Amino acid sequence: MRTVDLIVKKREGKVLSPSEIEYLIFNYTRGKIPDYQMAAFLMAVFFRGLNKEETVALTRAMLETGPRWSYSNISGFKIDKHSTGGVGDKISLILAPLIAACGLYVPMLCGRGLGHTGGTVDKLEGIPGYRTQLSKRQAQALLASCGFCFMSQTAAVAPADRLLYALRDVTGTVESIPLITASILSKKLSEGADGLVFDVKVGQGAFMKDLTCARQLAESLIQTAQELGTKASALITQMDEPLGYMIGNLLEVKEALNFLMGEMPEDLKEVTLALAKEMLRLAGLFQEGSEAEDFCLKQLASGKALELFLKNITLQGGKSSFIKDPARIPQARYRQAVLAERDGIVQDLDAYKLGLASMLLGAGRKTKKDRIDPYAGLELLKKRGERVAASDEICILYTSDESLFNEAKALVKEAIGIGEQQSSPTLLVIESVRML
Amino acid sequence: MRTVDLIVKKREGKVLSPSEIEYLIFNYTRGKIPDYQMAAFLMAVFFRGLNKEETVALTRAMLETGPRWSYSNISGFKIDKHSTGGVGDKISLILAPLIAACGLYVPMLCGRGLGHTGGTVDKLEGIPGYRTQLSKRQAQALLASCGFCFMSQTAAVAPADRLLYALRDVTGTVESIPLITASILSKKLSEGADGLVFDVKVGQGAFMKDLTCARQLAESLIQTAQELGTKASALITQMDEPLGYMIGNLLEVKEALNFLMGEMPEDLKEVTLALAKEMLRLAGLFQEGSEAEDFCLKQLASGKALELFLKNITLQGGKSSFIKDPARIPQARYRQAVLAERDGIVQDLDAYKLGLASMLLGAGRKTKKDRIDPYAGLELLKKRGERVAASDEICILYTSDESLFNEAKALVKEAIGIGEQQSSPTLLVIESVRML
Repeated sequence: MRTVDLIVKKREGKVLSPSEIEYLIFNYTRGKIPDYQMAAFLMAVFFRGLNKEETVALTRAMLETGPRWSYSNISGFKIDKHSTGGVGDKISLILAPLIAACGLYVPMLCGRGLGHTGGTVDKLEGIPGYRTQLSKRQAQALLASCGFCFMSQTAAVAPADRLLYALRDVTGTVESIPLITASILSKKLSEGADGLVFDVKVGQGAFMKDLTCARQLAESLIQTAQELGTKASALITQMDEPLGYMIGNLLEVKEALNFLMGEMPEDLKEVTLALAKEMLRLAGLFQEGSEAEDFCLKQLASGKALELFLKNITLQGGKSSFIKDPARIPQARYRQAVLAERDGIVQDLDAYKLGLASMLLGAGRKTKKDRIDPYAGLELLKKRGERVAASDEICILYTSDESLFNEAKALVKEAIGIGEQQSSPTLLVIESVRML
Repeated sequence: MRTVDLIVKKREGKVLSPSEIEYLIFNYTRGKIPDYQMAAFLMAVFFRGLNKEETVALTRAMLETGPRWSYSNISGFKIDKHSTGGVGDKISLILAPLIAACGLYVPMLCGRGLGHTGGTVDKLEGIPGYRTQLSKRQAQALLASCGFCFMSQTAAVAPADRLLYALRDVTGTVESIPLITASILSKKLSEGADGLVFDVKVGQGAFMKDLTCARQLAESLIQTAQELGTKASALITQMDEPLGYMIGNLLEVKEALNFLMGEMPEDLKEVTLALAKEMLRLAGLFQEGSEAEDFCLKQLASGKALELFLKNITLQGGKSSFIKDPARIPQARYRQAVLAERDGIVQDLDAYKLGLASMLLGAGRKTKKDRIDPYAGLELLKKRGERVAASDEICILYTSDESLFNEAKALVKEAIGIGEQQSSPTLLVIESVRML
């Protein structure tokens, strides 16, 4: 087998066999295929796509470059959620303890922030001492004692994906549904869950801007996960406006904590409960219907989900005194408010621009080497459809570095649209995707 | 400017500006853009193409990475021919002295064999002592004393092309008309000719298999050369059957020498004269019509072209005693004949397979490191349309390494088709392409 022949085969739109795809992935991971050949192959895939079998073969090959965990000590159903990335999306922080409180197990492999979106690992690392690099034994112990764990990708997890992801990032080959599918699943399937629910976000603050692409990605993720032995389904959810009021790492931890304590912003509650219900359904705990929602609300109201969250923080090394009282979580050194420029109704809160502004304030990374400022971010005081008067505070910017305000503030101003139209309520959960 | 943004721009089918293309080429040549980004860019170009302006900008940028020669000592018209590569194509060896005999100057930059096709440099290097690595001063002196020179690409000539060509070869991005155009012209235009005639070959033994692609390439070459200040035109010629009877390096030198001495195989004569006439026309020496052909034939009959060829051999360091008598050019150590398997008429002599067989016998390189066997190759005893009896010798195989016979012989047998059909004469010069 010659690599160049496989590049040409894909370039010509032909279908590669599983062994041809394995050859590419195994040899690339071992350094036997150079980056430039893989880059040409990835660009050919961008144009020609991969069919279902090729996508499965690619995902399997990438998965096999690392270990796939199992938890012999856990007999219950293990389920996880994966979001394609949004702004203000702190749902993982709430969902993991909530689902654990419902009696299932959540071995959650989480990512870092990417571009304008946040990442669960960055959020948790805002808590002093919190560790996400877990050994298999530590993950097993956490599942046994609090029902869930938050893990970051170690070097051992799907090494092929780490290499390919870095290469795609600099070669213009990120936006390919089969490549996105294989990247997500080669990591997520390694954690050894029995079921996976995908939150495929669509809209101006999501990586997928239109519904057709979002559906294709949802279907590709579900099909591939199922072929590789994991139950799967997806919700397509709206990401035009940030979820909740907080954007930024510790700000989002605080909002998640408040949520678990009963203070639930409507939009965040709607999407969180929809995902929780879908996870319970996939696990076979509930059929369709409202019982599952009542069950979830009970776990929240009883304080059981909160209790598990706090237990997890301690078990994963976090300073629990830091987190116990949301009101006492330290704030950023600097704050500035953005004021409404006129009377009216908030029409638009562009999630992409707000996410970018939060990143610029220090909550995300412009380059891989940047350090995260855990205190940086935005707090929205108004959301879409709310009435404001000129000079009302609409948004507070937080940062540890004053010099970052100017650029971020300009973006926030651009992101906010005030007008006269009464907004109709947005449908946040657009549709659910299931496949046989 | 970020390289990844330019890759994405081309990937999305947008048009790059000249300065964006220069950025890519200059920085790649200086090692500031890595191979993997260039590979992704080339694959994007394969799919999206380059328009006329982009192709000109790419060629100019590549050309500018090396020097562009001029010949202040030569006031006459300098013209060259470029063939896209064929089998048994020894026309350059004949054409250069012939055109010089007609009073023009031919500063010919030649290539090495590629795949199943031969290369003028490899052929000439079969003559002991012959040197093709010339300095500008040596080239000037050769033009002044014998009217032409054969030069191989030195490291200084269009370094961008050397790097890009090697990369395209291993990344499946060879077959792209704008990339082929820029590669050919970044070399050919550096030699400083005033005019260029392209012999774009089409057929089973050519890189272009169909006429539409051949026309596109011809037009792209002409347009780009003209935009960069060089007169240009093209002939599209048939390459289904090898040209002449000889394939292989010294075998072709011998056939060229015989040609210059008056022994002219019909097909070789037809294409050589057509190209010669086109070169004289482009130089403004003759209008359309048969006068130019008579003029050329006179240069051949008078022995003037032969004389210049022999003079050149000596001037470029070749051992003239080796070459003076074609019958005494040494033969390969081993020879084997392929016999006709039945009575009939030769229907097919597949140039691709015969070219490959000649390469396998040692006349070409399977990998870049292979050494050429100057004696290896094939001699056809019959050509298409000729009648043969069973067991007649049709083809002789030559090599210095007996172990190479088996594989090559099997290919030669496959290449030869004998049947009953009277063949109609093939139109070798399919069409001429000119553009305003």
